[in-house]
Amino acid sequence: MTTIDLNSDLGEGFGAWTMGDDAAMLDVVSSANIACGFHAGDPTIMLATARAAAERGVAIGAHVAYRDLAGFGRRPVHVTADELHADVVHQLGAMAATARVAGTAVTYVKPHGALYNTACADPVQAEAVVRAIADVDGSLAVLALPGSELLLAAERHGLRAVAESFADRAYEPDGSLVSRSKPGSVLHDPDEVAARVLRMVTEGVATAVDGSELQVRADSVCVHGDSPGAVAMARAIRTTLTEHGVTIAPFAPAAP
Amino acid sequence: MTTIDLNSDLGEGFGAWTMGDDAAMLDVVSSANIACGFHAGDPTIMLATARAAAERGVAIGAHVAYRDLAGFGRRPVHVTADELHADVVHQLGAMAATARVAGTAVTYVKPHGALYNTACADPVQAEAVVRAIADVDGSLAVLALPGSELLLAAERHGLRAVAESFADRAYEPDGSLVSRSKPGSVLHDPDEVAARVLRMVTEGVATAVDGSELQVRADSVCVHGDSPGAVAMARAIRTTLTEHGVTIAPFAPAAP
Amino acid sequence: MTTIDLNSDLGEGFGAWTMGDDAAMLDVVSSANIACGFHAGDPTIMLATARAAAERGVAIGAHVAYRDLAGFGRRPVHVTADELHADVVHQLGAMAATARVAGTAVTYVKPHGALYNTACADPVQAEAVVRAIADVDGSLAVLALPGSELLLAAERHGLRAVAESFADRAYEPDGSLVSRSKPGSVLHDPDEVAARVLRMVTEGVATAVDGSELQVRADSVCVHGDSPGAVAMARAIRTTLTEHGVTIAPFAPAAP
Amino acid sequence: MTTIDLNSDLGEGFGAWTMGDDAAMLDVVSSANIACGFHAGDPTIMLATARAAAERGVAIGAHVAYRDLAGFGRRPVHVTADELHADVVHQLGAMAATARVAGTAVTYVKPHGALYNTACADPVQAEAVVRAIADVDGSLAVLALPGSELLLAAERHGLRAVAESFADRAYEPDGSLVSRSKPGSVLHDPDEVAARVLRMVTEGVATAVDGSELQVRADSVCVHGDSPGAVAMARAIRTTLTEHGVTIAPFAPAAP
Repeated sequence: MTTIDLNSDLGEGFGAWTMGDDAAMLDVVSSANIACGFHAGDPTIMLATARAAAERGVAIGAHVAYRDLAGFGRRPVHVTADELHADVVHQLGAMAATARVAGTAVTYVKPHGALYNTACADPVQAEAVVRAIADVDGSLAVLALPGSELLLAAERHGLRAVAESFADRAYEPDGSLVSRSKPGSVLHDPDEVAARVLRMVTEGVATAVDGSELQVRADSVCVHGDSPGAVAMARAIRTTLTEHGVTIAPFAPAAP
Repeated sequence: MTTIDLNSDLGEGFGAWTMGDDAAMLDVVSSANIACGFHAGDPTIMLATARAAAERGVAIGAHVAYRDLAGFGRRPVHVTADELHADVVHQLGAMAATARVAGTAVTYVKPHGALYNTACADPVQAEAVVRAIADVDGSLAVLALPGSELLLAAERHGLRAVAESFADRAYEPDGSLVSRSKPGSVLHDPDEVAARVLRMVTEGVATAVDGSELQVRADSVCVHGDSPGAVAMARAIRTTLTEHGVTIAPFAPAAP
Repeated sequence: MTTIDLNSDLGEGFGAWTMGDDAAMLDVVSSANIACGFHAGDPTIMLATARAAAERGVAIGAHVAYRDLAGFGRRPVHVTADELHADVVHQLGAMAATARVAGTAVTYVKPHGALYNTACADPVQAEAVVRAIADVDGSLAVLALPGSELLLAAERHGLRAVAESFADRAYEPDGSLVSRSKPGSVLHDPDEVAARVLRMVTEGVATAVDGSELQVRADSVCVHGDSPGAVAMARAIRTTLTEHGVTIAPFAPAAP
Repeated sequence: MTTIDLNSDLGEGFGAWTMGDDAAMLDVVSSANIACGFHAGDPTIMLATARAAAERGVAIGAHVAYRDLAGFGRRPVHVTADELHADVVHQLGAMAATARVAGTAVTYVKPHGALYNTACADPVQAEAVVRAIADVDGSLAVLALPGSELLLAAERHGLRAVAESFADRAYEPDGSLVSRSKPGSVLHDPDEVAARVLRMVTEGVATAVDGSELQVRADSVCVHGDSPGAVAMARAIRTTLTEHGVTIAPFAPAAP
């Protein structure tokens, strides 16, 4: 029986503001990347999101980010490696205590937005992020792009390195993502995306942007939920997978 | 042999801004109340302060506060009990992970500023703070005013409740502090204060503002370090105590 | 011919977060209370909102607030009168320059949330707010509850004091609003509210919560737009008013 | 008689935190670059600083910055040109209203920190900053590095472009500043710096880092005041200049 994890960004409100339909997405995914207060999220939202995830058996990842509420963590912040290390330690600790109070535990870390991009590409920032994770809790997994500097650093530090694929992003023949600046980089048809994810999961294969086929092996598939259309697509993916006998389950469940 | 703890607020800078002479105070006190980012402190300052405390064997307390950088935590913030609970969980987690990375551990919690005042007087806020502490780590001590709602709540939750006295504050005959709005509420002469603290520690007695004597029993004495005069006073207290054979040591040392 | 102003809170997003459907509301109202960055709004949102208002001939008010993004300005902040004065000066200046760049001008000021409540009731805070307005631009009008300390202070300072009524709030027989903590304080039926506003505007009369009738004279009616239901209600109000020959126009239009 | 302006960064505290000795520096300089709340400064500090400057006849410049309190504006923030334009409009408006309430007026703009560096080098960011200034008030001068993109953009927009030199920075033979990463980039001896400034001002000549002489023409000299040593150096510069008959006066005084 095939099993796959679906992960999504959750808890991205702040104060009176909301982002996406968390309740809907928690019924779709098996892993919740919960914002830790640096790009989104505040302590009350973090705790409510952790509790909602725990109730549904959804695993909790710390969605660490640059400190930039005004930019939603989408802009690189020029921090030193030591500042980044301290920033990640802070967020992991806050999320860990929050998860504990919600009766569960953080089991993995996935950087957000600009930090994801930078730490996947830059070995210095990757090392700073992973050093923080290893310093705080060596049992945490790291979720990122296959072959990224982040996963290489995770392996160097003896952490579990988990590759993710993207449900709605087009791939180049070499397995990298088509840049968002190019046409066709993001797929919009729910049925097409659901079929694509099914094939990724069951065959480990995807059609690249040039029509060639490539190997796409991942332990988790990232789905988005920040718009009504995104929620509908996420539901289509889950339905298609379960109708074809694929079990959706966390790659890193919290110990019971 | 008499032993006493001296505690002080540390790590209260933010970004490029500093507050007080932390290096000097870490040579005076045995317990550091480290700001957790809500009224002051950022992850880099928190980690540097935790490391400096660990190097000197100074115990670390989480100096939790209302979320109010602009007001330095000195203004009451109208949060609900559940919001306050989540805020304290968040700060405790961040500080705990930071201390762990510094090779030590948080051993106690002391609220800051307006939260200290509110949670000492208001049983609802006291309960919210202590519930957060108990939820995160039942081994943490709570440091506050003797007889305060905070210490009562700590006892209800089975936490260690630790009373502190104040080196430079005048007392009413009933043991409460003279309001800062009254003349003579704060003592300024280092020698007078040092002698006063010595008597508190060795005899458990202080002279009240009306000249009467009162019992002042505490396991920790709070000293300030946010001005050059304050650092000099703190040094005078330490010197006087040690010259009279009093050992200065944390009331809640980190396990070795 | 009867003319009335409809005002609503707009530009209340922050960074990636949105609040309400500003585009829809700008087609309904004649006055936009634009957030100035203290409870919501950032410079980019402020400028976009000011431009959108200017394009439609909607008047611009500075929706000044306590500095509290995390609490959306709904919590009283314990600032001194001088701090509040400086905070309001700051917001007025930022909004004035923004409006100028959008080709229009701020013509009035309405405090937001907790500041509205406090400054309507407390003469000290009312004076601080109005002193700031008078110091910056004596031609600005002040929009608030009839008979409030804010409007009294505005009159003392020689500013135009403009009373507003509330479309969806129940009134006590004495003209005060029914407290939100009481049942029936907020009206939810669009047709009922539209008919009620029409009667307020054309007859100056409303039915109080006890069934009695009271005089409700106002130069502006506050309508909400922060939910899909609120937008529908706002549209019903406008349609009903215009169908009955009432002209909707700013009480304080920008000079052409 | 020779006249020169001395400018310095002031009002760079935030809430309870201070930076430098503003009172001392206001007795030295003739132009105050006042922080506008984005990298430092809050409304109360802005108003107090503007009043103190006005009392001494010190001219006021808006020290606009990237929005980054945690980084004190020293880190480039990846904003679009339109976001930067809106950010600068916001700061100029806030500072203008504040100055008006202090009985004076903003007469020039100088970007701070990372924005200064970026906008001096990058024509897109320079254009965004200057477009904001021109949109808000075409009578404002722009103070920056001679030959910089900022001053070129100011000239394009018909604004007064004012060149500044740096009291304590070493120059390359071509007139650019020696990079801070190189040894000898910053001069520390007050007497040497004072003599150097005197020669810059009276002869328009400075000795470059390689011993050659270069033309250094500027209408304002930037002096620092963020440390006790910096204040002493600033005083030495002023004393030397006045002893040699140089008048220190704003390049852009507020109209009386």
